[in-house]
Amino acid sequence: MFDVKPTLLLFTESAERMLDGALADRFEILRLWEGDDPDDIIAARGADVIVTLTLRLDASLLDRLPNLRLIVVPGAGYEHVDVVAARARGVTVANAGNTHSGDVADHALALVLASVHRLPEMQAWVSNGRWLTASPPERRHAMSAQRFGLVGLGNIGNAIAERLTPFGGEIAWWGPRAKPATWPRRESLIDLARWCTALIVATRGDAAGLIDAKTIAAVGPKGLIVNISRGAVIDEDALIAALKDGSLGRAALDVFAQEPAAPERWRDAPNVILTPHVGGVSQEATERLRHAAIRNLASVVDGTPVVNEITA
Amino acid sequence: MFDVKPTLLLFTESAERMLDGALADRFEILRLWEGDDPDDIIAARGADVIVTLTLRLDASLLDRLPNLRLIVVPGAGYEHVDVVAARARGVTVANAGNTHSGDVADHALALVLASVHRLPEMQAWVSNGRWLTASPPERRHAMSAQRFGLVGLGNIGNAIAERLTPFGGEIAWWGPRAKPATWPRRESLIDLARWCTALIVATRGDAAGLIDAKTIAAVGPKGLIVNISRGAVIDEDALIAALKDGSLGRAALDVFAQEPAAPERWRDAPNVILTPHVGGVSQEATERLRHAAIRNLASVVDGTPVVNEITA
Repeated sequence: MFDVKPTLLLFTESAERMLDGALADRFEILRLWEGDDPDDIIAARGADVIVTLTLRLDASLLDRLPNLRLIVVPGAGYEHVDVVAARARGVTVANAGNTHSGDVADHALALVLASVHRLPEMQAWVSNGRWLTASPPERRHAMSAQRFGLVGLGNIGNAIAERLTPFGGEIAWWGPRAKPATWPRRESLIDLARWCTALIVATRGDAAGLIDAKTIAAVGPKGLIVNISRGAVIDEDALIAALKDGSLGRAALDVFAQEPAAPERWRDAPNVILTPHVGGVSQEATERLRHAAIRNLASVVDGTPVVNEITA
Repeated sequence: MFDVKPTLLLFTESAERMLDGALADRFEILRLWEGDDPDDIIAARGADVIVTLTLRLDASLLDRLPNLRLIVVPGAGYEHVDVVAARARGVTVANAGNTHSGDVADHALALVLASVHRLPEMQAWVSNGRWLTASPPERRHAMSAQRFGLVGLGNIGNAIAERLTPFGGEIAWWGPRAKPATWPRRESLIDLARWCTALIVATRGDAAGLIDAKTIAAVGPKGLIVNISRGAVIDEDALIAALKDGSLGRAALDVFAQEPAAPERWRDAPNVILTPHVGGVSQEATERLRHAAIRNLASVVDGTPVVNEITA
C-alpha cells in the first residue's frame, strides 16, 4: 500500500516504550521529543500515522498533515482530538476502547475507600505515635451509610457502580442522556451533588468545567469529590478554594487540570488524596493497550480493519 | 433482682464513653482506670457485670469475682475471655455479634486496594514533585489479576469475599473446618499462602501465631498480607523481618501484637500501610455496638434475655 515505509509520529517517549520495538521495521519512526521544534518536524516530515495520548490534534494541525491516515489514542479519553475535523479529512481515529475501564474503576474504589476510611490520617496516627496517647477519632461514617453519586454512567461509571454495590450504600447517577440502568438517574447534576455524600466523576473528558463552583458547594463541607476522568472536568481553582475554606470536605483525584501537577498548587489544600494519573496503569492494562495499538498500526500497512474506531 | 444496684466494672474510659450515660442510674459504676491498683479495686469491690474489649478474664481472675454474672464484649473478638471457665462459673459471655463485620470488611478492602494500587507511593509522587520529572512506575498488577486468599470465612471473611467479587480476581479460602461456601477451600493454609498474591487474614482472634514465618515466606517477595483480625494471629517479628529482607512484598495491618503499636517498631519496615485498629470504628457501627451493649446490660436488672451469647 506504500512505496516507502509509512511515517509513524510518536509524540512522547512513553508511546515508544509502550510499543516496545513492535513494527519498528515497518514504519519510519519520527520522535517528536527529539527535535528542537516539533512544528518544524511536522512541517518537514509530515506523518501517515500518529500515536498520542495528549497532542492536541485540531483542524489547523490536521491541515498541516495532509498524508495523515490514522490517529491511534492508546487510552480511553480522546478529548484532545477533533474527531469531526479528522473524519472530514479522511483520517481514522481509534482509541483503546474498553481496555482499562476496570482498572480505572478499581482506582476510583481505592480513592473512595481511602477517603471514607481516612487512610492518610490513620496512617499518621500510627507513624507519628499519636496512637500511644489518644484513641483515634471516631467521626467517620460507614461505607454502608454513604450515598454515592456517579457523574457519567459509561463503561467506567458502570464498573464503579458494580464494585460499590456490595458495600451497601445508595447509588445514583446523572449524565446528560437518560439510559437504561440498574441505578436511578437524578434529575440534574446539582440534584445529584446535593443528594450524595460522595460525588464520583466518571464522565467523558470533553465536559470541561462541568463540576463548577456551584456543584462543589452542593457536595458540601462533609462531602467528598473523587475524579478519575479528566482534570479539566472540574473547576480546579474552585475545588482548591473550597477545600481551603472548608466548604468542601474532601477530594481524591487521579487527574488534574495540568499534568504533571505542581506540588505547590496543592500544598495547603487539606483533606486530599492525590495520585499521578495512574488509574488505568496496571501491567495487564498496559499489555492490552499495547496489543490494541499495534493491531491498529498494522492495519495501515496490512489493510486489516481498525478496531475501536471513534465515529463521533 | 438485686437489693442494691449491681456493680458494673468498666475497664477503660472508652467503654464509659460508648455507654454515654445510659443505665448510669441503674448500676454502681466501677472505673478500673481511676484507682491505683486494679487488683485492689477488684478484690475490694467485685463486680456483677464487666464491660471490656481487652481485659484478660481467665479462670484465676474469675475466681476473684464470685458475684460476676455477665461479661459484655462490645466488639467481635473475645479471645481475652476464657469462655469455658466463665460458663463453668455460671457467668454469661456476650459479644457484639455481627454488628460491625461489614465495616471491618470495608476496611480490609481499603487496605487491599491501597496496597495493590500503591496509594502511599503514588501520593508521594505528587506531593514531592517527582511526577514533574519522571513518569510513575508501571509495575503494579491489576486487581483482576490478583489471587485473593482468605484465612477464615466467618461473617467478616464472607463480607470481604462478597466485596472482592466485582473486581474480577480469583478468590479462595482456608479455615480449619470445611463448610459450604461460594468460594473454593484450599487444602491447607500453606497451600493458600503459596497460591495467593494477597493473603487476607480474617480468622478468629484466638488463632495465635497461625501465620508463622513459613506461611509468610510462602506469600513471598511479590505477595501482600492484610490483617484485620487480631495482631497475635501473625508472628509479627517474622513479618517485620520478612518485609525488611524482602522475602515478603507488602503488608497492610489494622491490628498489632501490642496495641497501641510503637512507631519505632515499624519505622524501618518498608511497604507497609498501618492503621490504628479502626476497621470497625464507624459512627454507625459504634451506635449499633452501644445498643447491643446497653440491651445486654439491661438484661441483668430487667431479666430480659441476653443477645449474642457466646456458648463455646
